[in-house]
Amino acid sequence: MIKTSIKKVIFLILAFLSFFILSAFTNRNSDNNKNKISSETEMCIECHKIYTPGIVTSWEQSRHSKTTPSEGLQKQKLERRISNDNIEENLLNNIVGCYECHSLNKNNHKDNFEHNGFEINVIVSPEDCKTCHLNEVNEYNISKKSYAYHNLESNPVYSLLVNTIISNKTFKNDIIENTKPSDETRSVTCFGCHGLEIVVNGSKKIETKLGDMEIPNLKNWPNQGVGRINPDGSRGSCTACHPRHSFSIEIARKPYTCAQCHLEPDVPAWEVYKESKHGNIFSSNESKYNWDSVPIKAGVDFPTPTCAYCHNSLIVNNENEIIANRSHDFGARLWVRIFGLIYTHPQPKTGKTFEIINKDKLPLPATFNNEIAKEYLIDSLEINKRKELMASICNNCHSSTWTKNHFAKFDITNYETDNLIKTSTKLMQKIWDKKIQNNKNPFDETIEQEWIKGWLFYANSIRYSVAMTGSYDYASFKNGWWNLTNNIGLLKEKLLLKK
Amino acid sequence: MIKTSIKKVIFLILAFLSFFILSAFTNRNSDNNKNKISSETEMCIECHKIYTPGIVTSWEQSRHSKTTPSEGLQKQKLERRISNDNIEENLLNNIVGCYECHSLNKNNHKDNFEHNGFEINVIVSPEDCKTCHLNEVNEYNISKKSYAYHNLESNPVYSLLVNTIISNKTFKNDIIENTKPSDETRSVTCFGCHGLEIVVNGSKKIETKLGDMEIPNLKNWPNQGVGRINPDGSRGSCTACHPRHSFSIEIARKPYTCAQCHLEPDVPAWEVYKESKHGNIFSSNESKYNWDSVPIKAGVDFPTPTCAYCHNSLIVNNENEIIANRSHDFGARLWVRIFGLIYTHPQPKTGKTFEIINKDKLPLPATFNNEIAKEYLIDSLEINKRKELMASICNNCHSSTWTKNHFAKFDITNYETDNLIKTSTKLMQKIWDKKIQNNKNPFDETIEQEWIKGWLFYANSIRYSVAMTGSYDYASFKNGWWNLTNNIGLLKEKLLLKK
Amino acid sequence: MIKTSIKKVIFLILAFLSFFILSAFTNRNSDNNKNKISSETEMCIECHKIYTPGIVTSWEQSRHSKTTPSEGLQKQKLERRISNDNIEENLLNNIVGCYECHSLNKNNHKDNFEHNGFEINVIVSPEDCKTCHLNEVNEYNISKKSYAYHNLESNPVYSLLVNTIISNKTFKNDIIENTKPSDETRSVTCFGCHGLEIVVNGSKKIETKLGDMEIPNLKNWPNQGVGRINPDGSRGSCTACHPRHSFSIEIARKPYTCAQCHLEPDVPAWEVYKESKHGNIFSSNESKYNWDSVPIKAGVDFPTPTCAYCHNSLIVNNENEIIANRSHDFGARLWVRIFGLIYTHPQPKTGKTFEIINKDKLPLPATFNNEIAKEYLIDSLEINKRKELMASICNNCHSSTWTKNHFAKFDITNYETDNLIKTSTKLMQKIWDKKIQNNKNPFDETIEQEWIKGWLFYANSIRYSVAMTGSYDYASFKNGWWNLTNNIGLLKEKLLLKK
Repeated sequence: MIKTSIKKVIFLILAFLSFFILSAFTNRNSDNNKNKISSETEMCIECHKIYTPGIVTSWEQSRHSKTTPSEGLQKQKLERRISNDNIEENLLNNIVGCYECHSLNKNNHKDNFEHNGFEINVIVSPEDCKTCHLNEVNEYNISKKSYAYHNLESNPVYSLLVNTIISNKTFKNDIIENTKPSDETRSVTCFGCHGLEIVVNGSKKIETKLGDMEIPNLKNWPNQGVGRINPDGSRGSCTACHPRHSFSIEIARKPYTCAQCHLEPDVPAWEVYKESKHGNIFSSNESKYNWDSVPIKAGVDFPTPTCAYCHNSLIVNNENEIIANRSHDFGARLWVRIFGLIYTHPQPKTGKTFEIINKDKLPLPATFNNEIAKEYLIDSLEINKRKELMASICNNCHSSTWTKNHFAKFDITNYETDNLIKTSTKLMQKIWDKKIQNNKNPFDETIEQEWIKGWLFYANSIRYSVAMTGSYDYASFKNGWWNLTNNIGLLKEKLLLKK
Repeated sequence: MIKTSIKKVIFLILAFLSFFILSAFTNRNSDNNKNKISSETEMCIECHKIYTPGIVTSWEQSRHSKTTPSEGLQKQKLERRISNDNIEENLLNNIVGCYECHSLNKNNHKDNFEHNGFEINVIVSPEDCKTCHLNEVNEYNISKKSYAYHNLESNPVYSLLVNTIISNKTFKNDIIENTKPSDETRSVTCFGCHGLEIVVNGSKKIETKLGDMEIPNLKNWPNQGVGRINPDGSRGSCTACHPRHSFSIEIARKPYTCAQCHLEPDVPAWEVYKESKHGNIFSSNESKYNWDSVPIKAGVDFPTPTCAYCHNSLIVNNENEIIANRSHDFGARLWVRIFGLIYTHPQPKTGKTFEIINKDKLPLPATFNNEIAKEYLIDSLEINKRKELMASICNNCHSSTWTKNHFAKFDITNYETDNLIKTSTKLMQKIWDKKIQNNKNPFDETIEQEWIKGWLFYANSIRYSVAMTGSYDYASFKNGWWNLTNNIGLLKEKLLLKK
Repeated sequence: MIKTSIKKVIFLILAFLSFFILSAFTNRNSDNNKNKISSETEMCIECHKIYTPGIVTSWEQSRHSKTTPSEGLQKQKLERRISNDNIEENLLNNIVGCYECHSLNKNNHKDNFEHNGFEINVIVSPEDCKTCHLNEVNEYNISKKSYAYHNLESNPVYSLLVNTIISNKTFKNDIIENTKPSDETRSVTCFGCHGLEIVVNGSKKIETKLGDMEIPNLKNWPNQGVGRINPDGSRGSCTACHPRHSFSIEIARKPYTCAQCHLEPDVPAWEVYKESKHGNIFSSNESKYNWDSVPIKAGVDFPTPTCAYCHNSLIVNNENEIIANRSHDFGARLWVRIFGLIYTHPQPKTGKTFEIINKDKLPLPATFNNEIAKEYLIDSLEINKRKELMASICNNCHSSTWTKNHFAKFDITNYETDNLIKTSTKLMQKIWDKKIQNNKNPFDETIEQEWIKGWLFYANSIRYSVAMTGSYDYASFKNGWWNLTNNIGLLKEKLLLKK
């Protein structure tokens, strides 16, 4: 009797140890999953683990390599990472491998080509990701981000600014000649973030280790800008934030990702966050955040908010009641637009900001005199709704008075910085009026560039700093009040020079 | 016999395993501690875990939630984190919860209010923290930090600089009118770090999920500046460095915290540290430091020094002999003041720098000609004492010659940068003398702002860089010699313009 | 029978547990290693763990304290960290301790001194490290880095720039007098990174806790610049990247180390990397890299490349075939030089750039009109060889088209930025020609400094950004096209001023 029970105990101990040891040393792709790899994906991997092992390793570490859409759909509603209940039968029970993504919607893909017996799309577009991530792509499709290319390229004011900056300048016969920016330079400056149109110009032959191959000849490739126009006509590039083949939610949620584009001096979100109390705690405790949890429990999973937390993550309270829905329309929770333009203004109603026309007939949401183009912008009802949603996020850690006072400071900062910019704009206008400088191109003279720095760099840095509850030195001396004060002084001196 | 011993062995194994498993999975707030929560704090938490879960979670992760003052006092002297041996009986045996801190010294707290049956202070002040952390608050109370608000607001020279920078500027009738900075803007710029006076203006009614509430109506709230004037009359805000409700020593010790205020361009401590060898090793090995150890064993717990390590932590050697005592008077180990003023000078004798008057009758520690106001500054005896203390910290990892030579470089850098600033100040003086610019306000013209950049940004960046054993590129090109050279050139050109 | 087998099982479990527990808690310096410490090193440690415990702790955590050269040599070729097969018998079987390194090649060391009965070198030089790390030092010896001191000091153009920037400037009799930079300032600015010559000026007596000591009197010490001239005549300082006494490969491989010198504004490698996709993934996943693995498996050990990965690490594929050999000649994989000079140009053939003379008789690789000094620079054959090697690294994660297009963008960026700088240089030349400014010293007037900013800060920032696959905002607004456009405008205005 005793012997039997001893054996039992020993067995249990051994089983327990085995489980621990096995789960620690076992290959992450268990046999269980291997069975679920499609035969097509298996063939992809066979070659690519030799020729591009980095991609394969990256994918192997991804959730895609370990789960099937069917398993994803079985999760609790709030924990689901996919949002299409009607995924096609043939995709449901395979893990999400190379072929599952690179073979979708072939007929729409001008970049589809015959590749060792398979029909493969070079680029996986949001329209393809939509197969499983339906809501996310639909949200994204109405966002300003998804129109980031158009909002630059189709807005003649912005286009002029872009072309003034990144044009080639040659000195000939005492004159500086500007020539059009090259496609290559466009792709590695403004349109690196905003995205470009990937055009398929037939095909070309390349030499590979496996012999010659015929592949699509893509113009503007590679490009991962958020408003990329894909060969299937869709807009956007999911990989901009969920990079490479890990498609990591952790990376997308970390501020480093947003920081690739939202940066000093024109959009100093990252610098300002880093210097705020929220950012300080993030930097100190980064390893203690539950980066992968879906949904995020307010005040629990994330000790302090990050970019994604406030702007687009699904947040619930301790009772699993939704505080804020996930949204991939990244401006959806915002009421005021604080950067990129001369004055602050209510968020535009749609993502297509290039369609806005103000009273001066300029494609800008406010005139030089700060009269806003109301009909294109959200109204006070919507403004208040968004403010309340954002407050409900703050209030999980802060008293309602704290939040209210914080928002009041932000309102006043926007008002004051707009007022300062009105001052510098009036000075600029006088400089133009007095023909001290001509305004044919309002962006190409050094004094005009001073004026631009006022609204494009300094005023919005101040606003950013206050929006993120304070990176005080930044707003005072780094790129804020100090600079704006000096900036107005420079404009004044230029004006007085020819009084 | 054998069976018995087998049973024993099995029992031991099981016990061993149980211990490991239990200690891994057990809730951090053991039942043991729960018994020690005061009934008041329990009631606080009951509501606040619903309404502000972030605060509660933060506190639950704190040491305060897991220990009682009595337990804290039982530690070895050097390991103690509290310094008052005479804590009141009624506080000794409860863990340090909401009510324990928010109900102290009610009679002094103008922000005390009736809150669901309890008398609660909105703000916990250093005077309250002093209940347990007696020495720390006493040290803090004599520091420059604790006078950070006064040192700006009560110094007319600094006040003028502040008001020049953060005033509103309106362009009317060809003149730029300056209007006084708003309270809100003060709170999110200079006084965000320096602190403001929190004034209680009666009470106000707010709507909450639990119905209307009457709460104190606080002006300048929220503010966590280091020189904040609290509703009980005390100075300072412990949460500035030990943020929110975790009161973390780890966060306070990480340079990210200091970096919220000590930043480029005027106080580039963080930038310069990050680029130094000490900072490089910190960035590379951050996870290997013993962030929580009290005391810090020199050269063991911290592979390289951080801000706190050199400036205020308790450091002992391998024999547990004290190398440097803990101090919350953050300037106590420093002998020379290298930023914020025109010239370097010995540290002031007290924290109240606004009381200094130099020979030119200006509230500055040196005249424009660099004659120092000796009577307000520490003498050479004290200077040497502090140098020796700091050297004794360096010498745990560096040879005494290394340290001596390092200090010599620092002395020479201070001498040379002072000399360069004397050059730029002479140029500025000539510009004023020749009426090229008037000096009614020495801060409001663009050429004056160039002069300011010389001493406020560039000279002190060079000094910081050398103090931290070298961020060489920073001192050369980023914000140092290159800029100072160019700066002197600009002043010279302005002067020559009207020769 | 059963009892016996039970005992066996229990024994096995206990042995298993013991192994786990022991290996977890055992001191890292096992007794095994202690036996291998030389008696000399043991004596060093006995004192130094009292007087400089930081150094000893650092060394104890190093690989040097845990392994003997003999053990290092027994590793598989690719896994070896030492490269000398003929290490002297007397060094082979001791762990690499204080005495093993600080007593080498005594006769060459002018800094050798009698130290408590031992003959000790203050400085361990690359020539000493070469004892085991033969190939690494040989590679280093031909690199530009190893000539970093000479390349600045022995190049009169650069010397003039250095002396213009870091000289003392005194204002006397309406003239600004420049006086020679001090040794101390040289050591904490340009030559902090580039290195200085450590000169032994006899000896001096110092007081220590153990009584007076006679030590070598070193000029320019401490200095860890990469081109340091050591007292044994060798060039370089291994500790610049493998800092202090941990000699860590992990630290050397992390970009923070390179970032100490390769920084904004003149060499913004770090800033640009951090903002690239590679850098974003590094920041997000830093803890998941196999920092210590030798060799590095491409696309597996490092999810994204770091500085060391692309520039000098040994990289193999999944079949352990070498993709790129380790090299401590850090420019060996590079074909184009993009910083520090007026125009881009092919990499120099040797590390001694101070020997280059162009057609204008200036010690620069290109004339002001961008005619390159071909005979000193690598030819197209070598350029293509290096491009292909680098491409073979990229291609582990990227398609060959991706890589090809990336390189094409880089080529065009170099061409366009050179063209822009030609424009600004022509403008500068005209300013000199018209005597608006004299060019006796081409670096000392503010407008000349604008011109310098064009090529030293902005053009190369753009190139860096593109080289690292894009930190787009940086190249657009931070330190790139925006600034270069404005910069050309400023030069034009200066020229027009006196038309």
